[in-house]
Amino acid sequence: MMNTILHGNTVAGNAIVGQSGGPTAAINATLAGVIRGVLDEQKAGGRIPHLYGMRNGVDGFLREDIIELDSIFAPDESGSYTALDTLTLTPAAALGSCRRKLPAPGAPDEAEVMDKLFAILKKYDIRYFFYIGGNDSMDTVAKVSAYAEKIGYPIRVVGVPKTIDNDLVGTDHTPGFGSAAKYIAVTMQEILRDTAVYTVPAVTIVEIMGRDAGWLTASSALGRIVGGQAPDLVYLPERPFSHEAFFEDVQAALNVHPNVVVAVSEGLQCADGSYVGEGTQSGAVDVFGHRYLAGTAKALELAVKDKFGCKVRSVELNLPQRCAAHLVSAQDIEESLEVGRSAVVAALSGVTREMMTIRRLSDEPYTFEVGHEDIRKIANMTRSVPAEFISERGNNVTDECLAYLLPLIRGERYPVFDRGLPVHWIF
Amino acid sequence: MMNTILHGNTVAGNAIVGQSGGPTAAINATLAGVIRGVLDEQKAGGRIPHLYGMRNGVDGFLREDIIELDSIFAPDESGSYTALDTLTLTPAAALGSCRRKLPAPGAPDEAEVMDKLFAILKKYDIRYFFYIGGNDSMDTVAKVSAYAEKIGYPIRVVGVPKTIDNDLVGTDHTPGFGSAAKYIAVTMQEILRDTAVYTVPAVTIVEIMGRDAGWLTASSALGRIVGGQAPDLVYLPERPFSHEAFFEDVQAALNVHPNVVVAVSEGLQCADGSYVGEGTQSGAVDVFGHRYLAGTAKALELAVKDKFGCKVRSVELNLPQRCAAHLVSAQDIEESLEVGRSAVVAALSGVTREMMTIRRLSDEPYTFEVGHEDIRKIANMTRSVPAEFISERGNNVTDECLAYLLPLIRGERYPVFDRGLPVHWIF
Repeated sequence: MMNTILHGNTVAGNAIVGQSGGPTAAINATLAGVIRGVLDEQKAGGRIPHLYGMRNGVDGFLREDIIELDSIFAPDESGSYTALDTLTLTPAAALGSCRRKLPAPGAPDEAEVMDKLFAILKKYDIRYFFYIGGNDSMDTVAKVSAYAEKIGYPIRVVGVPKTIDNDLVGTDHTPGFGSAAKYIAVTMQEILRDTAVYTVPAVTIVEIMGRDAGWLTASSALGRIVGGQAPDLVYLPERPFSHEAFFEDVQAALNVHPNVVVAVSEGLQCADGSYVGEGTQSGAVDVFGHRYLAGTAKALELAVKDKFGCKVRSVELNLPQRCAAHLVSAQDIEESLEVGRSAVVAALSGVTREMMTIRRLSDEPYTFEVGHEDIRKIANMTRSVPAEFISERGNNVTDECLAYLLPLIRGERYPVFDRGLPVHWIF
Repeated sequence: MMNTILHGNTVAGNAIVGQSGGPTAAINATLAGVIRGVLDEQKAGGRIPHLYGMRNGVDGFLREDIIELDSIFAPDESGSYTALDTLTLTPAAALGSCRRKLPAPGAPDEAEVMDKLFAILKKYDIRYFFYIGGNDSMDTVAKVSAYAEKIGYPIRVVGVPKTIDNDLVGTDHTPGFGSAAKYIAVTMQEILRDTAVYTVPAVTIVEIMGRDAGWLTASSALGRIVGGQAPDLVYLPERPFSHEAFFEDVQAALNVHPNVVVAVSEGLQCADGSYVGEGTQSGAVDVFGHRYLAGTAKALELAVKDKFGCKVRSVELNLPQRCAAHLVSAQDIEESLEVGRSAVVAALSGVTREMMTIRRLSDEPYTFEVGHEDIRKIANMTRSVPAEFISERGNNVTDECLAYLLPLIRGERYPVFDRGLPVHWIF
């Protein structure tokens, strides 16, 4: 099956795309972008005869769990990409995901795993490898491209970012973040209305995803710069959390009005490095060594109840933050599609071992361009909320922070509904 | 200020409207319906010179916390009801709410509280009293109308139902329920996509509101009759919960596929009457004597983790169930408006001491009519999910149940967005 032609920047051969890491509402928009990019190339240049999809990321790929995608998503007779449009607004990785980490260079199982992976690549004559994911997935991109170079297998390996956490370096923001931020900002507006109906003093603590970076939690305050409604207090994991300062902040807020709303990141840590959330007491870690977090808001609910004796409620926004495809940011979906499509164009032009990036050109009106960056400058690094985006006391975000966030949640795009429920793409 | 004219069924005088109980995404649609009904009457008959709104229900009314509504919501120069449209899709009681229970007949404070209430009614020449709320609010309607009769004060007191719980008797369903059911059904579709991405065995337990009635939890299964996706197991509070049977059910589901999703009602009780949720251990009750519930899914998460050792996650859908106005049922909003408008028409025609009701005329196509029912047959009673709507084993709902629910979630209606966030009405 080896029939690759290499001349200059042109590699002819098949492509494969996979998804990895946690779901987002826009990860399938990026997949749709990659598919569209390949379909366009098939019409124009024909250098990519087939596009395969790996089920459950590299984990499924190593089991040769592969499907052909270009035939499924070809335009219909009228030229419409109906199936691709449905895929675009389907939440969570439609191809399935995994959290498998490939062996490190020099690890005992490196040769076994990587040789198997490259044997399958060769078998299907795969010369383009697109991997959609977050930080850990970019680690996979780095390892596959490094190994390809080591064994001299010509392949273009391009990382296509997605993560609701917005914590990848080298890009203004990540596809998937805008939709999660919009869900959080809108839901916070609704929770603020909900908590405002009673007159008895009450504290509502809303827990938002973000293990190491507070971008999503910061988004909960967006109402402040468009309509005046926002949580009273916002705590990000970038600052050490002090229970004493927190109690002072809550008291000050209760002195102003009875319905205090607090946004907290799931990853809040005290100065001694302990997590605020009780769920960390077990010391459990995931396969990447991240500590499992849960219950930050619940722990603070009990603390506030104990301290103030008033009505307290905790709300963990939980999974809908990353899968609420019924409420996406149109801007995010547009960018997610574009980043996927551009990854194909970049790979065809010779780019490899790079991650696609988004560069912000201007804020008002918001404009962007898609680029790419060496994966070795990106993988396994975390981009935190910078100091100037956090208030001096560490209990809110600055207007500068909100100005950065606002363009990313703009615009609405709704899935097609059938008898009251959204239509999702299921392979 | 006493200038009421009574002849036949015609009472001329002012009207007041209040909201009470827990928020819903449609309670302001009902308020908008009442306002529209009065505005229409002002144009047509003029029997209601002013429409007042009480802030925070009867609690605020007793403090004379009253605003005039008809002037605020009058149509603009072009004849459009723009302000009313914004109010319609604003979540949670825009007038504020309360959980105040009026004194029972013969209670020591009855005369004091009720005489104060009627003094304010007389002061503002209020002859129409509309109270939007759930079960506890209908108790207020019953008491105000009974006391009016006792003291011979001519007033029409009409209850306008809303509750996400759908547990009022005398009506096919309640305004507000359809939107909450839609939010739950859609979110469950998204959670099912989210949990499907990995291949390792995992159980996800989704906790849904519903203290005594399982209508909302049942709605999580709606995908089954339109697209094939639904949780594996659904437990309603109408059936005693057995941990042993639950473990058997989970094992059977895990034997079929790795990603098991379970929907549970917050109000699940064991055969001995104890609540499954750990939050009940405190024995705390609210002012109506309801036990405070929390943590049913969390308690089951720990039980499943202990029993099976697999990955388990609990998701409490929490406040967004009742305030997610960005994802309402168009059918529910239409009915909520219509029930509010019809309450005014009914009161003008002589109806008092009644609650507005919805009667289902047909399923396919779904049609309904609005009626009214004696409040004494309604207040303080609960409508549970009937036995024929629950599977024999008590771990799912029947297709008959889903066929009843489906028309209520149909249609989408979206709020106006400004720079990415929904525009809400705030008094």
